[in-house]
Amino acid sequence: MKVINVGLLGLGTVGTGVVKIIEDHQDQLMHQVGCPVSVKKVLVKDIHKDRDVNLPKEALTTEPYDVIHDPEIDVIIEVIGGIEQTRVYLLDALKEKKHVVTANKDLMALYGSELISTATENSCDLYYEASVAGGIPILRTLVEGLSSDRITKMMGIVNGTTNFILTKMNKEKAAYDEVLKEAQDLGFAESDPTADVEGLDAARKMAILARLGFSMNVDLDDVSVKGISSISDEDIAFSTRLGYTMKLIGIAHRHGNKAEVSVQPTLLPDHHPLASVNDEFNAVYVYGEAVGETMFYGPGAGSLPTATAVVSDLVAVMKNMRLGVNGKSAVAPQFEKKMKDPGEIYAQQFLRIHVRDQVGSFSKITSVFSERGVSFEKILQLPIKDHDDLAEIVIVTHQASEEDFSVILGQLNDLEVVVQVKSTYRVEGNGYS
Amino acid sequence: MKVINVGLLGLGTVGTGVVKIIEDHQDQLMHQVGCPVSVKKVLVKDIHKDRDVNLPKEALTTEPYDVIHDPEIDVIIEVIGGIEQTRVYLLDALKEKKHVVTANKDLMALYGSELISTATENSCDLYYEASVAGGIPILRTLVEGLSSDRITKMMGIVNGTTNFILTKMNKEKAAYDEVLKEAQDLGFAESDPTADVEGLDAARKMAILARLGFSMNVDLDDVSVKGISSISDEDIAFSTRLGYTMKLIGIAHRHGNKAEVSVQPTLLPDHHPLASVNDEFNAVYVYGEAVGETMFYGPGAGSLPTATAVVSDLVAVMKNMRLGVNGKSAVAPQFEKKMKDPGEIYAQQFLRIHVRDQVGSFSKITSVFSERGVSFEKILQLPIKDHDDLAEIVIVTHQASEEDFSVILGQLNDLEVVVQVKSTYRVEGNGYS
Repeated sequence: MKVINVGLLGLGTVGTGVVKIIEDHQDQLMHQVGCPVSVKKVLVKDIHKDRDVNLPKEALTTEPYDVIHDPEIDVIIEVIGGIEQTRVYLLDALKEKKHVVTANKDLMALYGSELISTATENSCDLYYEASVAGGIPILRTLVEGLSSDRITKMMGIVNGTTNFILTKMNKEKAAYDEVLKEAQDLGFAESDPTADVEGLDAARKMAILARLGFSMNVDLDDVSVKGISSISDEDIAFSTRLGYTMKLIGIAHRHGNKAEVSVQPTLLPDHHPLASVNDEFNAVYVYGEAVGETMFYGPGAGSLPTATAVVSDLVAVMKNMRLGVNGKSAVAPQFEKKMKDPGEIYAQQFLRIHVRDQVGSFSKITSVFSERGVSFEKILQLPIKDHDDLAEIVIVTHQASEEDFSVILGQLNDLEVVVQVKSTYRVEGNGYS
Repeated sequence: MKVINVGLLGLGTVGTGVVKIIEDHQDQLMHQVGCPVSVKKVLVKDIHKDRDVNLPKEALTTEPYDVIHDPEIDVIIEVIGGIEQTRVYLLDALKEKKHVVTANKDLMALYGSELISTATENSCDLYYEASVAGGIPILRTLVEGLSSDRITKMMGIVNGTTNFILTKMNKEKAAYDEVLKEAQDLGFAESDPTADVEGLDAARKMAILARLGFSMNVDLDDVSVKGISSISDEDIAFSTRLGYTMKLIGIAHRHGNKAEVSVQPTLLPDHHPLASVNDEFNAVYVYGEAVGETMFYGPGAGSLPTATAVVSDLVAVMKNMRLGVNGKSAVAPQFEKKMKDPGEIYAQQFLRIHVRDQVGSFSKITSVFSERGVSFEKILQLPIKDHDDLAEIVIVTHQASEEDFSVILGQLNDLEVVVQVKSTYRVEGNGYS
């Protein structure tokens, strides 16, 4: 019985988890695949570092091509991260007819199409379930479980760090800076949190989801991104008051043959399934024309959850090897990419505005909206503490196009009665299409 | 380009949905599979009935073997329901080397092992995603997405009718009979609701889930079942007061190599992911040793959601046909079936007891528990309106074995101070193992 040999690039958090699962679940893997699997060689930075796994010293190497060029290795698992250099490693591995499993969202968001087509040309598998939403098998669900449906909308909480921060801000009414620091202390946020809190990490995952869900080559550049760092505790307080929960939501929406993809702080009605996804958990809400509303929930990161996705991909590769059908499962995009213009992207909007408390203020503001044909779902006006001359107006509009909304914002800022538009957020989840 | 021909057994709610999806998503199916798919023959009860789909009259037949024996048909889709007769149809179809897709949970719960092995012997596929939780691709998730993990616990809201009823009872404090009638009027419950409300439908689905999730041949007889028809509005009121939500939960739990599977009304802490699954929606919560907590949510029934699962299975069959690997994906159970004894099944329990309000009542009751080593998490004692001589005691125990609990119940009923043990419910979701 031939052993299937795995080469591992990286032995950090996820890599360690991969070695552990392969070791601990060896019987189960062998039962499913019919032959044993062994981690033959591992690329590490430091051979002499103490590690939490049982690997013989001679399995470790600091030279990537010791792994990639090893003729006995069948599958390369990439968990080192990085983009440009890692792309070269994986292209070289595929050209050497090695199957690839990767957890690298940055790489797949930027070079996914190139890697997938190189894999197909070389009759190799390329699986990347772990790149989006860690332990949730969402890519498989889109490609297989919902393969017969036409997916029109996906909304994802796909970044655990920002969800942890926003959960704390929602529940404890704590300020952003304070909660970010706590998240850093707990290891949920990195010392440079930019990629997480500015939405870039989520954007990469949404590009991957949109590509698969809509079967078109959505690029990272097609995703508009806004992070959570400017959310104030007042924003949270007012949104709570109106029955909303603030989340960083990746939205991919398709109408006809045109798509929009964005990541932005979004207000969801409290009863929406995504509104109760808390702490560092991830979830992806998928709306299909036939199936309707579905949601997939689980851990978005962490050593063992992410490693579960990686090793489940490895099982798929090994099953394909047994059947001799590697490199056959990728389906090329069915549709040419067409992204919507700002005039075609519709959403409800939440605005918080400080205005001068004088006769006619309110009517001046509302006329700016009505001139662009935008009406209101909710309005709240309150005095502002310690500012007798000012009032706080909170508005939730009905659907408005981004184009109209941007004109409205410009005109509001030009109004003499408007002191400042303090914040605006997209509102989602009141209806589906 | 060869057309793949489908024979459909049944053209009711789900069958109609299948025909619609195949028609409406023809381009998409063809893009994925590389050839067109056509519904060639359909078994119906009445050829002349008006129908909501475009099928030529000559495609319809009332003779099952016109479909099963048609040499041009590659795949049989079974959506007629029924057990004994349908089993014979599908065994005959498999022996004729036709692949089978079925939505029939009753059949798969009772004769799943026989059908799967007949399929494998004949190099045929047998897929049955639609049999559990309609539009949620949970079987695929267990077999593929989480294939590398060791699943130790599954909890499912897998019956939409009872979830609809309990949601109404929880939210509107309405009585069971009243809500059942409303569900029947709305078409969410059948005129004979027994299979749903007594938990049998959920038990069939849990047997299928346990078989796949634990890789052992769990039978329907192994599932202990209790329905929702005896839940009172007082039970709901007291459980709400203690921070729980009442749900009909299928629980499959594995410790070491032994399993327990049950369906019973269960109290979940309000913050548990399953507690907010409302109305007719289904959800399956899966705990894996490595991945931790995951949950999969969606519609559990309905024409198009269920048909989505059926046609996605059809896509899998067609992809296998293209690659020539049909009949290779089923994995035989890895473990011999071992079910726990009542002394090995542990759970927290909720009890509601009417006692005589006299000195020493409470201590007599608590000593019954302490003699079996069972301690309390929560206790509530209240007067009973219009019964000055009685008191209501509500207890939530810590973990107790079913064996101990049954002895305790017997002894409580023998106590002179106990008027009646009004109800008991399992409490779940406070911790995971």
